Amino acid sequence: MATQFDPASGTRDFLAADVEKRERVFDVIRSVFTRYGFEPLQTPAFERLDVLLGKYGDEGDKLVFKILRRGEHEASGEADLALRYDHTVPLARVAAAYGSRLPSPYKRYALGPVWRAERPGKDRYREFVQCDLDTLGSSSPLADAEVLCAHHDAVAALGITGFGVQLNSRRVLAGLLEVFAVPADLGAGVLITLDKLDKLRPEAVVAELEQRGLAAQTAAELVTAMTAPDAETRIRDALKKSDEGRAGLDQVDQVLSLVAPQLPPGRIAFTPRLVRGLSYYTGPIWELTAPGVAGSMGGGGRYDHLIEQLGGPDVPATGTSLGIERILSLLPDADADAAGGRPRRLDVAVTVMAEELAGRSFGLAAAARAAGLRASVYLGSSGKLGRQLRWASDQGARWCLIYGGAEDEAGTVTVRDMDSGEQTSVPVADLGGHLARVAG
Amino acid sequence: MATQFDPASGTRDFLAADVEKRERVFDVIRSVFTRYGFEPLQTPAFERLDVLLGKYGDEGDKLVFKILRRGEHEASGEADLALRYDHTVPLARVAAAYGSRLPSPYKRYALGPVWRAERPGKDRYREFVQCDLDTLGSSSPLADAEVLCAHHDAVAALGITGFGVQLNSRRVLAGLLEVFAVPADLGAGVLITLDKLDKLRPEAVVAELEQRGLAAQTAAELVTAMTAPDAETRIRDALKKSDEGRAGLDQVDQVLSLVAPQLPPGRIAFTPRLVRGLSYYTGPIWELTAPGVAGSMGGGGRYDHLIEQLGGPDVPATGTSLGIERILSLLPDADADAAGGRPRRLDVAVTVMAEELAGRSFGLAAAARAAGLRASVYLGSSGKLGRQLRWASDQGARWCLIYGGAEDEAGTVTVRDMDSGEQTSVPVADLGGHLARVAG
Repeated sequence: MATQFDPASGTRDFLAADVEKRERVFDVIRSVFTRYGFEPLQTPAFERLDVLLGKYGDEGDKLVFKILRRGEHEASGEADLALRYDHTVPLARVAAAYGSRLPSPYKRYALGPVWRAERPGKDRYREFVQCDLDTLGSSSPLADAEVLCAHHDAVAALGITGFGVQLNSRRVLAGLLEVFAVPADLGAGVLITLDKLDKLRPEAVVAELEQRGLAAQTAAELVTAMTAPDAETRIRDALKKSDEGRAGLDQVDQVLSLVAPQLPPGRIAFTPRLVRGLSYYTGPIWELTAPGVAGSMGGGGRYDHLIEQLGGPDVPATGTSLGIERILSLLPDADADAAGGRPRRLDVAVTVMAEELAGRSFGLAAAARAAGLRASVYLGSSGKLGRQLRWASDQGARWCLIYGGAEDEAGTVTVRDMDSGEQTSVPVADLGGHLARVAG
Repeated sequence: MATQFDPASGTRDFLAADVEKRERVFDVIRSVFTRYGFEPLQTPAFERLDVLLGKYGDEGDKLVFKILRRGEHEASGEADLALRYDHTVPLARVAAAYGSRLPSPYKRYALGPVWRAERPGKDRYREFVQCDLDTLGSSSPLADAEVLCAHHDAVAALGITGFGVQLNSRRVLAGLLEVFAVPADLGAGVLITLDKLDKLRPEAVVAELEQRGLAAQTAAELVTAMTAPDAETRIRDALKKSDEGRAGLDQVDQVLSLVAPQLPPGRIAFTPRLVRGLSYYTGPIWELTAPGVAGSMGGGGRYDHLIEQLGGPDVPATGTSLGIERILSLLPDADADAAGGRPRRLDVAVTVMAEELAGRSFGLAAAARAAGLRASVYLGSSGKLGRQLRWASDQGARWCLIYGGAEDEAGTVTVRDMDSGEQTSVPVADLGGHLARVAG
């Protein structure tokens, strides 16, 4: 039940375990991208309203979070700024702003939150992380292959297996529409319906195509060609009749020949029914999917005119977007470093047995940190050893240092192994060395 | 000059070198905090408006970025959400929401952007990173000492030297007002003026105190006590006459006795004139400053009732806030990994000498990555070696792999050392091993 203390609708608080899991995943992804020579770009959380509006269609514009003008203008009820809706429009703005001062080609990744006023639901948030990898300024299929491989490698590096890469080209789809004589005004709608072949039975897709106004026979032939056991051969044959279709097949085969040898056998396949909703793609398109997993782990494609349409320079471009929240939900929550289910916050917990010894305990924690370990003194008010040992255990500490009157007189510290309960007396001056030795 | 492609006023685009510098700094800070047993907390970029408004005073409220309601409510011109203004109000909300499910004490850090509609200026942004370290639920001076030491260690770990830590207590200040018989209604103003002793000449401070209505003699005595060569002795003597003053001195001395032994000699000093603007502090306060550096590298103190005032539970609390943007501006921009001033984006640049050899080149880059190196193929359209070597050099690559017709026939790849120009012929199957060897 929502309370007044919950975060705003569609947003989340991330406590330590969540932050650490997310950051681990982001680190892996960044490291793969860096190995491919992509560089980071961070743009502000908000842009001027005119930079964003009109770029996402009417439906998208409604989902943009707008920021009210300030000061004397606040009463106008008008907005002048808006929260970042994706990473692509800011990329276009940066490309326009920096022009030739950017490397060419400009290979960049963006990893950070975007905000959309969607109705919140399972796995659908109003604040979520988007991770984009794009290359501006190259029309080579090598650029397509590179972003696709980097996307694949990032997912694989996270330990995800059993996923596949579907590959197609917008030009293959255009060729298909031509070969099957789909009227031009029905083309976009027909593609949207064909995209549902993953989710709907073929008959349902045929019915929807007819509803869109496609002749019954054409609808049936199209769906049969795409779903038959020998679909790829049929489609390849059919496409030979169209210049556009042959060009699309060439694109697919070029990317396949570059990417397939780098991937595990059978991982990537030409998938003629793959459409990817967005209309701005101009060449190869792809998607990473896992059987039984609703939604995809992201995808992308070539989009040669979009950057210009978004206000940037006229550059060829290709990119891929990782479905980060989906990928995160596929990964286990378990903290690999957990001690009996508790996250290890500390390696070394230090008791404070008496107020006048607090300074010594504080110094012992500093010595443990100097030995490279995570360490803290007890900050509570109980002087009881049992209570403080419970705290040490709650912290997942491997060792607890006990420093009381006896230790103070002897110049030693008692090092308790929290797993075995074994206690060792160590000269204070030796503590750092001792801890470094037992910590291995 | 601002153009339509610039980021919104007061915000910044961070290109690769900036992102990398900032992330390096954040990593160092996170690692120091983790060693002290602090855990991360990430809250959303926006909160419900009622969570934020009324928490920062009238002036603060005006600086909050408000988000317009959406859909049918947009026309109302009303806001229902607002961008995070600091990390403290969200912390109070989280403490209220999670209650006893949080560790006790709750030691957390928050490192992320906040947004304030200030007039932009040098080193003053509307989007800037704030980094807070706080302990909720402990009234022990050990907790104050811990956040202060962690703050100090983070700054020191970044290689910053020549800074100092000023330490005081709000109770020392209260005691001083009592001893010098400052009328209660003038107290807050007198402290604000005394805080300027760092920047103004003593006579100017005396004059401002008189303007505030303080008797001329009191003003002169107060300023003399705080600026005389033996200021600390004078103040310590004076404070003996006040219960509050003695309690404040005790606090200062307790924190000093814990912290000073862990810091380089002379780094921390009792500084009676330190006020720290914010009125919510209740105990020890501190600030990290460097001579000649305007503004501070952050500071903090104990604030035992603030969390409750902000809507959270009634818990004692202490914390410190790092002046991140200031700290960043003190650190050099130079990329330690630079090759002749260029950042090293790649270790290995791979030429593409002919379209039909592109797949082989793509595979060579993959082999270099598998050897742990950053590698990419040439994505441009020139088939000329000179042009491609220039690209390799622009990427800061250490090696360029050349794979043309001759190499294809021989089953070798030419590895060119980009510094010496020396070229080695390596069997393709040996490439990974060869690169691993030369990369050491």
